[in-house]
Amino acid sequence: MNAGPRSHPPVRVRRMGLHAQHQAIAVMRTDCPACQSEGLTARSHVLVRAGEKSIQAELFQVDTDLLPIGDIGLSQAAWELLDVNEGDEVFVSHPPPLNSLSHIRRRIYGGRFERAGLDAIIKDVVARRYTDVHLAAFLTASAVPPLNLEETIDLTAAMIAVGEKLSWDRRIVIDKHCIGGLAGNRTTPIVVAIAAANGLVMPKTSSRAITSPAGTADTMETLAPVNLDISSMRRVVNKEGGCIVWGGAVQLSPADDIFIRVERDLDIDTEGQLVASVLSKKIAAGSTHVVVDIPVGATAKIRTEEAAESLAARLIAVGQHFGLAVTCLQTDGSQPVGRGIGPALEAHDVLAVLQNSPGAPTDLRDRAAALAGAALEIGGVVSAGGGFTRALTTLESGAAWEKFRRICIAQGGMRAPGVATHVLAVRAERDGVVRSIDNRNLSRVAKLAGAPRSAISGVFLKVRLADLVAAGDTLFEIHAAMASELSYTAEFLTTIGPVIQLGE
Amino acid sequence: MNAGPRSHPPVRVRRMGLHAQHQAIAVMRTDCPACQSEGLTARSHVLVRAGEKSIQAELFQVDTDLLPIGDIGLSQAAWELLDVNEGDEVFVSHPPPLNSLSHIRRRIYGGRFERAGLDAIIKDVVARRYTDVHLAAFLTASAVPPLNLEETIDLTAAMIAVGEKLSWDRRIVIDKHCIGGLAGNRTTPIVVAIAAANGLVMPKTSSRAITSPAGTADTMETLAPVNLDISSMRRVVNKEGGCIVWGGAVQLSPADDIFIRVERDLDIDTEGQLVASVLSKKIAAGSTHVVVDIPVGATAKIRTEEAAESLAARLIAVGQHFGLAVTCLQTDGSQPVGRGIGPALEAHDVLAVLQNSPGAPTDLRDRAAALAGAALEIGGVVSAGGGFTRALTTLESGAAWEKFRRICIAQGGMRAPGVATHVLAVRAERDGVVRSIDNRNLSRVAKLAGAPRSAISGVFLKVRLADLVAAGDTLFEIHAAMASELSYTAEFLTTIGPVIQLGE
Repeated sequence: MNAGPRSHPPVRVRRMGLHAQHQAIAVMRTDCPACQSEGLTARSHVLVRAGEKSIQAELFQVDTDLLPIGDIGLSQAAWELLDVNEGDEVFVSHPPPLNSLSHIRRRIYGGRFERAGLDAIIKDVVARRYTDVHLAAFLTASAVPPLNLEETIDLTAAMIAVGEKLSWDRRIVIDKHCIGGLAGNRTTPIVVAIAAANGLVMPKTSSRAITSPAGTADTMETLAPVNLDISSMRRVVNKEGGCIVWGGAVQLSPADDIFIRVERDLDIDTEGQLVASVLSKKIAAGSTHVVVDIPVGATAKIRTEEAAESLAARLIAVGQHFGLAVTCLQTDGSQPVGRGIGPALEAHDVLAVLQNSPGAPTDLRDRAAALAGAALEIGGVVSAGGGFTRALTTLESGAAWEKFRRICIAQGGMRAPGVATHVLAVRAERDGVVRSIDNRNLSRVAKLAGAPRSAISGVFLKVRLADLVAAGDTLFEIHAAMASELSYTAEFLTTIGPVIQLGE
Repeated sequence: MNAGPRSHPPVRVRRMGLHAQHQAIAVMRTDCPACQSEGLTARSHVLVRAGEKSIQAELFQVDTDLLPIGDIGLSQAAWELLDVNEGDEVFVSHPPPLNSLSHIRRRIYGGRFERAGLDAIIKDVVARRYTDVHLAAFLTASAVPPLNLEETIDLTAAMIAVGEKLSWDRRIVIDKHCIGGLAGNRTTPIVVAIAAANGLVMPKTSSRAITSPAGTADTMETLAPVNLDISSMRRVVNKEGGCIVWGGAVQLSPADDIFIRVERDLDIDTEGQLVASVLSKKIAAGSTHVVVDIPVGATAKIRTEEAAESLAARLIAVGQHFGLAVTCLQTDGSQPVGRGIGPALEAHDVLAVLQNSPGAPTDLRDRAAALAGAALEIGGVVSAGGGFTRALTTLESGAAWEKFRRICIAQGGMRAPGVATHVLAVRAERDGVVRSIDNRNLSRVAKLAGAPRSAISGVFLKVRLADLVAAGDTLFEIHAAMASELSYTAEFLTTIGPVIQLGE
């Protein structure tokens, strides 16, 4: 049943404080007259209408006094989308048919997506009309067979169409992106500082952690405010040439934010979805040039050079269609970057590089300089081949640090990242050479210690691949805000194999 | 994070009376120490352990006093699976990895399912370890490319393996199935009565309505109890040769019950899933022969003869593998069968046919006789070609009615289906010939009037295709239990096009 008359009585809305990520959930009594007259049962999809606004939600029912009869409880996402006040009257009915599903069915039965179909799908996704069932079917159907170039372009365009768009009155606007999967790879703040110090414009939006111990926005937040709206972001960029802010407040590609959770649950990453996800945000951000870091390694997201080349080719082709110049750099993805894993610990690494501190992690410095160098070359600051050296010079002269400091101040004031009060050293049990470092388990340890919820928590790595260690040397430290978290994490370590393997 | 130490404190369990169909949901406070120490966030998957039992659930969080800190609320499905009492202590942690997803990923990336993979998937599905995201991905990945014969056989076997199995000490055990989509097609009680009256064994389990105004179990329940457990069902069949009971109490293919909702949400029906769904139940029920009714029509589930033939071939081939003889009948799917749509209204049609009442719907009688005839032929009661006549004789002699009455008594007592107190006639606005009857909208009208929740509600059809009607003649009646439902349904009728179209 897809439509119904509107004569049934209204129900009163209640904020339940129910958090279910993006999911819009409505809760009603099993014996509620509105449910009975509409024939609504648990897991029905319902349309909830408040004045001119309406949302679609999944209906759960309760047979207890959790709610009075005649009330409807809303999950936080539904509450915010509907923009109501406690006790407001709303109307509940069957939602209109989800016609965009026909495009998914067509692809399941052997067809291809077309622009109009993808537009309809993405519009319904952003309007929260897709349940998990629909989202998973769309993402799976997009994977078999893989999206072709035309479909990837159309999907990118559809994702851009439903979000905010930024524009900058500049001929060249630089962006960067990392294809993830490598702990501690926090080059963004350094790249932005170097690029802006050289006169380039780089309005960078970054994400918070979803499954990792820290996202760039989490790390940056230990150094300066990152929750800037579009006008504040514009002010910072006009003043300093660059910024590093949280993208969540800017809504450049709202469909992507919804897909990410489902992709993570399925643990499928398809090239087409990845390309549309990355490029829709860059294009919506008004970028003209983007440098993409593709770490390649056994425990990174991209495992082979061939996969990296295929991804790079698709990124470049789709970017070209939208007038976005894409430069891809394959980088070493065999071990974490820098020493810190966790927001504040990574911020200390970033500061060490920017401030030319003795002992600053050279791998983080060199990766950032390579990416910044590519930006300087495509931005016309230096000619081809001269970028890396210029980037290092910008760091060594203190110009990058000065620019970073000014960006932090413009974003609302510079902060000192905290230091953990509880630290536990994990030591080598024998002499040996570091043969492997388990990226994934290190991330798990950092998360159990509290990252990113607790910004000062995480892991501080003391060794790198091929280092010689003696029995009793510290391999890594666990940093935590509470003693209980430390002991909890230490106990976890005993349940898994060695995170750092030593050989002869 | 897939594992963790078990040293964290237990939480107290609360029944929330939250109905979300099969979904296992756990609700905890955002600020609950167990959530914080495990790094659990909204929509995390959690393992809830109570003594030796454990379930997996999806975590929702609340920031209100809906729950005290340290408590965990469970949805009804979770509560029943975990089998706990209010206030029991349970442990919450990250679930073990869902390894069976790798088989889905392999198929997405171009592989095929194998028996071991399907076994692992179906086991996890029945253990409620699959969320909607996983279920939708499995069903979508099963559709592209379509399951081949071997995969369909393996899926059928995997679905049988996780459910109950019945066995009958008889050489021939008859079953029937209808591929749905046709309102009022309530042949089952008549077919069982005719078959059993002729000495065949037919232990029939039927479903309740999911999206339709009545399932066979709903209709049968207006005539006799249908919630029989396996031993009661066995007693009825041993005594009378047949039964018509609700399959939900028997758990013959529990995975199918979980897939149905997701398939409905996606509105995709794939041949492989359909075949595995139908046959897994028949094989688990111990049947040796099954007659399948495949209605073909523009608004039925199967729309062309070719599609019906392809489906029949696959049903026969898979059945053969399991030693189940499948006979398929293509039938007319162009209009509803009989006159009633809704549990009691359909029961009146069934009784009229069994009792040879004047004006009994001949289309229902002839369809039932054709299906029963096929059963009589494959059951060896009559030779090929003699089934239809024998079935009609069994009806006309009163033997089928007598057998049906005895089955009802054996199931717990015969009842009279009720009659609606509120009836509204929908009349022709002009003279004309009935050109089309909208199956789908008639079902919607019946559901809005209260079916199947209210057994006496529904639609009573007064005309059939090609009938001549005069202005003012009743086209159909709406039956309801309350005046408000009647006016509500009547109002709905004004918002849609004509349900019955008249031509010159």
